[in-house]
Formats: sequence, structure tokens, C-alpha cells
Amino acid sequence: MAEKKTGGAGLRGQVAGKTALSTVGKSGSGLTYRGYDVKDLAEHCEFEEVAYLILYGELPTGAQLADYKGLLKSQRGLPQALKDVLERIPADAHPMDVMRTGCSMLGNLEGEENFDQQLEKANRLLAAFPSIICYWYRFTHDDVRIETETDDDSIGAHFLHMLRGEKPNALHERVMNVSLILYAEHEFNASTFTARVCASTLSDLFSCITGAIGSLRGPLHGGANEAAMELIEKFSSPDEAEKELLGMLERKEKIMGFGHAVYTESDPRNAIIKAWSEKLAEDVGDTVLYPVSVRCEEVMWREKKLFCNADFFHASAYHFMGIPTKLFTPIFVMSRVTGWCAHVFEQRADNRIIRPSAEYTGPELRKVTPIADRG
Amino acid sequence: MAEKKTGGAGLRGQVAGKTALSTVGKSGSGLTYRGYDVKDLAEHCEFEEVAYLILYGELPTGAQLADYKGLLKSQRGLPQALKDVLERIPADAHPMDVMRTGCSMLGNLEGEENFDQQLEKANRLLAAFPSIICYWYRFTHDDVRIETETDDDSIGAHFLHMLRGEKPNALHERVMNVSLILYAEHEFNASTFTARVCASTLSDLFSCITGAIGSLRGPLHGGANEAAMELIEKFSSPDEAEKELLGMLERKEKIMGFGHAVYTESDPRNAIIKAWSEKLAEDVGDTVLYPVSVRCEEVMWREKKLFCNADFFHASAYHFMGIPTKLFTPIFVMSRVTGWCAHVFEQRADNRIIRPSAEYTGPELRKVTPIADRG
Repeated sequence: MAEKKTGGAGLRGQVAGKTALSTVGKSGSGLTYRGYDVKDLAEHCEFEEVAYLILYGELPTGAQLADYKGLLKSQRGLPQALKDVLERIPADAHPMDVMRTGCSMLGNLEGEENFDQQLEKANRLLAAFPSIICYWYRFTHDDVRIETETDDDSIGAHFLHMLRGEKPNALHERVMNVSLILYAEHEFNASTFTARVCASTLSDLFSCITGAIGSLRGPLHGGANEAAMELIEKFSSPDEAEKELLGMLERKEKIMGFGHAVYTESDPRNAIIKAWSEKLAEDVGDTVLYPVSVRCEEVMWREKKLFCNADFFHASAYHFMGIPTKLFTPIFVMSRVTGWCAHVFEQRADNRIIRPSAEYTGPELRKVTPIADRG
Repeated sequence: MAEKKTGGAGLRGQVAGKTALSTVGKSGSGLTYRGYDVKDLAEHCEFEEVAYLILYGELPTGAQLADYKGLLKSQRGLPQALKDVLERIPADAHPMDVMRTGCSMLGNLEGEENFDQQLEKANRLLAAFPSIICYWYRFTHDDVRIETETDDDSIGAHFLHMLRGEKPNALHERVMNVSLILYAEHEFNASTFTARVCASTLSDLFSCITGAIGSLRGPLHGGANEAAMELIEKFSSPDEAEKELLGMLERKEKIMGFGHAVYTESDPRNAIIKAWSEKLAEDVGDTVLYPVSVRCEEVMWREKKLFCNADFFHASAYHFMGIPTKLFTPIFVMSRVTGWCAHVFEQRADNRIIRPSAEYTGPELRKVTPIADRG
């Protein structure tokens, strides 16, 4: 069974299970959700249609979509005990820690009693995450207790409304829909795999999603859009961006938002969000951030053959919509919770506990020395 | 590279990384921590010595142990915001959800700013977990706000003191030491692997441990000692236990506390905790629970060649010490946090993001049908 010992670092290329949810990097179609190209979905669907597709298996009819959006709307309120918890998290906490704690606390208050409730609880999390992050953010930053039960038509509009205190225009709502579609699902990435390992012990959904948030928090996984923002906002012109980037490359500094662990030639999500970032730049009259971003893309390709991944043009797009940089990764959670939950359902439907082996590199067997004789 | 595709269900037998922390099921020594047989450690050491061994790499000298116990003692207090959170978790919540939320909340209040703090934060969690679970339990069940900063000499005594409101006797303190030693580390089990997947994104320690708690919560992982308790407390005599067990076996019902995913002949931890359970039975004058447990062990071996794992005699041992059944798995957390943290340190020291592949079983590429034409 020598071939079973070749796991290697990071399980790269190792099949750890089956999924019907997505394909990543297959030739001819960069990213598909349940067989649909993400470009096709981003062009023709609202995010709630895609969430329904991921969680229920098929795109909804018009009537199903209306019902589903009504259901999600009805789930936007937060229990008082959860609001009390959010109010006790300091303003300088990491927003992903807030999401993780909010999810975990909700599990205490509205736990999953049995797996028959899994879809109900998944929809609850999908509806509640924008409320959780905005309630905490507005309380700790603006000193207001916001109403989270609004009549906004979509999750994206609900989020922007709570964050900015007014309903967004149609362009901003559309870009939120596209962004949430692009981030919804991505096969066995580290946060999704975390959720599946947890699910394989037959733990509850809140534990699985809490764990996934913790993994997405890591700078090697989520957070690249925040790092991209920190990069591009340093530059006041495309020429300055080019000069500084070349310096960073020469000093071998890490530049976030480029390249990908699975995609080798391009990230299919980049062209989509880039086009929307350009529209937003026109809308707000930007003459710096978008041209700077385009120049960064050109320089990284010319110098290193590195392409923008989904995160790079998300930075400018979110910024143009007035979203604070530190809330970029929580938006990722608001979207990816659909993929995470669907993976948990898959793992439960055909489960074996995920328990790999390790290569031992420690000391040989030794005897305990009496404590008086040590050192 | 065909041999890279044989992952199979649950990654069983696949090497997912290296560890110097433990060996499980190697012939001649069932379980070792950094080269020491767990039997040797359980006989000669206090839990804090073993925690030090796991986290720092070597057994402490007498002076180092005294310093370490002093450090842990100084870390037993909980910040007010965390107490406020615990008070808002209902009495009927799952105690593992309380541990998960307490850990996550502490990450908001005392987060790991950088990896130089990892040992400091690991020790903080080790010292704080007994306080977290007992503060919540006593507040919601006994309506008291306990003082968590006690002068008890050990973690086990600290826990029993807070739980029962009086200092434990020497026998109970010793059994807690042994129990915490037995549960401290167990290679790449599902909760530890969860912590390592999370760590591989370079996320913070609180995220890794929060995720691990969520996985340990699953009934296929932690919780077997609770299930064993529920089994044995049904029987009023060994004969009744035998009769009922045979019926359960005939009906192919799941019986928890027997067998193991890795051990094939015996669990090296069983004989140790069994001997202590017998001592406790004598101490409390038990004539039912211990003999019932012994009969269960005999029947399961005779009928199914299934041996008791670490969890089975833990049930009676904990019960004899007056620990409520639903707190059994949180004790596992109080111990295993040492192994989890040490695995996080290892992962960080030689990291590659853990990102396996999946076998796709979903629909072929298809086009989005306009919503008006669906259904």
C-alpha cells in the first residue's frame, strides 16, 4: 500500500472526497457551480438565485425565488442575547473574530437540534450574517443600535443599507449581487475543507461554519482583497504604482491579489469584477484607484506572468461603494456560507470521519526521569 | 501520478503532515507523547508536567514546573465582557457550544497579535477553559457568580473546586491529573486536524482552537464518555447489563465507548482509567456502576472482540467524582487544548496551506435558463 503514503505537504492533488457542487480550473470552464459557468450566473442571476442553486440543487423558478427571498427577509432579526454579545466586542476587534463569535453564539440560542433542520439553519445564517457584522460595526464605530429588520429586496442591498444608513442605488445593489455570486463556492479550499472535517464528526452546522470562518480569517486564504486595498491606496498615480511595484518585486516582497493555488492561466472571476469596478469608477468619478489597479495588473503580468485573482478588483469595487476595508472579508463570509453549508450537507449524506495519518518525526521511546533528577 | 488520486473516504491511512508530538498504535507502545509512554506519564507525572512536555518539548525540572504552575494559576480570571457573554448563554445550551463561544469571545478580547505570542495564548486558554465552563455552569444551574481565581494547586483541583464549591480530596485531584494526561494528545484525529487545517491558512490560535472544539463536539469524536454514562446508568446490576447489552447487540444498536479507529487490540488508556475508577468506586462505596461497567467490558469482548476505549471507564470515574454527565466532553477540551496548540505550532513552523482536491460528481456544463422559462 505504498501509494497510500504519498500525501505530502498540504494534501495538494489528493482527493479528499466527492462533490457535486463545483469545478475549479477545468479546461474550457474556469469555475462552475452545479454545472453552470460562474460568468453565466453572474450575468443572468441575482445572488439569492445562486444561493438557492447551491443549497437546493437547482435554480429556482420565479415563484420559488420570490418565496425564498421572502423567507430570507423574515430572518434578518437578531435575538437580544446576540446583540448583547456583539456590543461587548471591542471596536478594534478583528471583524472576522466578530463573525466567528456571532455564529458561535447564535448556535447557543438557536442550535441545530437534528439534521432535518440543516436547510432552515443554513438560511438563517445566510440572512443573519449581514445583520451580525453591521450591528457590531455601527454600534462600536457610530454608537448606534441599528434596526436589522429592513425591507430591502436583496442581501446585498440589506448589507449596504445597514452599513451606510440609506438604501443603495441600483448599480451598487447589482455589484453586490455579482460579488456575492463570485465568492459563493470554490470546492475544497481550506475553509470549506475545515467545515467538512468538522461535519465528518457529525457535529452541528454552527460548529462547522464557525470553524470555516476561523480558517477563512487566515491571511493565506481570505483577506487578500483587504491586502490588495492596502496596496493600491498607497499610490497616487499609475506611474507611481508601476515604479513602486517594480521595487517591491525586486525586493521580493509579497504582493497580494495575484495568482492562485489552482488556476494557472487566469481567474475566471477577475474579468467580471473588473468590468464592474470600471463602471463604479465612472459612477463616482474616480481617476486614480481604477487606473492604478489596471496598471498593477499590467505590470504583474508583464514582469511575472501573474494574473489578478478574484480579490484584486474587488478591492477598488468595494471601496467605490464606501465599504470600509476591514469589512471586505466578512462579505466573503456572507456569500461563502452557501457553499460551506452545501458541503456540510454533502459530507453528512455520505460520511466517513476525516482522520488522516501523520509521519512521526519525534524522539524514540524514552523513560520518564523522576522530576528531582531532571535538568 | 495515478497514486495521488487514491485518497478515498476520510483520508484513512493518508499522510497529511509530520508530527513530533505523538505516536498512536505503534506496536510495543500504544500511545506516546514526545517519546514517553502514556502509562509512564500517567503513573509518574502531574498533568501540568505533561502539558509542559507537549507545549515546550521536554519535561520540566522541579523549578520549571513550579514556575509553570504559578503562571497558569495567575491566568484563571475571566474578563468581565466574557462573563457577560457566558451569562447570556441559556442553561440548556450544549456545553461544547459554551466552550466554543467562550474561546471565540476570548479571541476578541485578548487576541493573538502575532505568532510570538502563541505560547502565552496557549497557556491562557489552558488556564481559562475550566473557568469558562464552570462560570457558565454555576451561573445558569446554581444561580451564582463564582470566583474563578482560586489558589488550587492544579488545573484538575481548580475545576473540581469551582464545580462543587469545595476543594477536592487528594484522590479526586489525582484522578483528574490522570484523566487530563490521558486525553492530552492523539495525533491527527479530526479535531486536531481541524486545528491544523485552520492553522495552515496562518489564522490565529483562537480560530484554530475554536474550530477544534466544534469538531470534538461531534458524536463520532468527543462525547463517547457521555454516551457510555447514559448506557451504564440504565442498569441496576451486572446481570441486567449483560441481558440488555446482548439485546442491543442483537438489534445491532450502536454501543459507545468500545473499539477505536486506530487501535486494533486495545486502547492503552483503558487499563489506567479503569484502575482509578475501581479506586473511586471503593472510595464512594459503589456496588453497582463499577461492576456494571466491568460486566459490559466482559460482554463486549466475549461477544464482539471489542475492547473498551479511553472513554468507557471515564464515565464511571467522572460520575464517582460528582461531575455532571454533560460536562464530560468539556473536560476533554481542558486537556486536549495542549495537543491542539502544539499541533498548531508545528503546522506554523513548516507550513503549506492544506487544500486537497475533490472528485466531481455533479452535472455537466449547462446554460442558465431565463427565470421566466424555468419550471
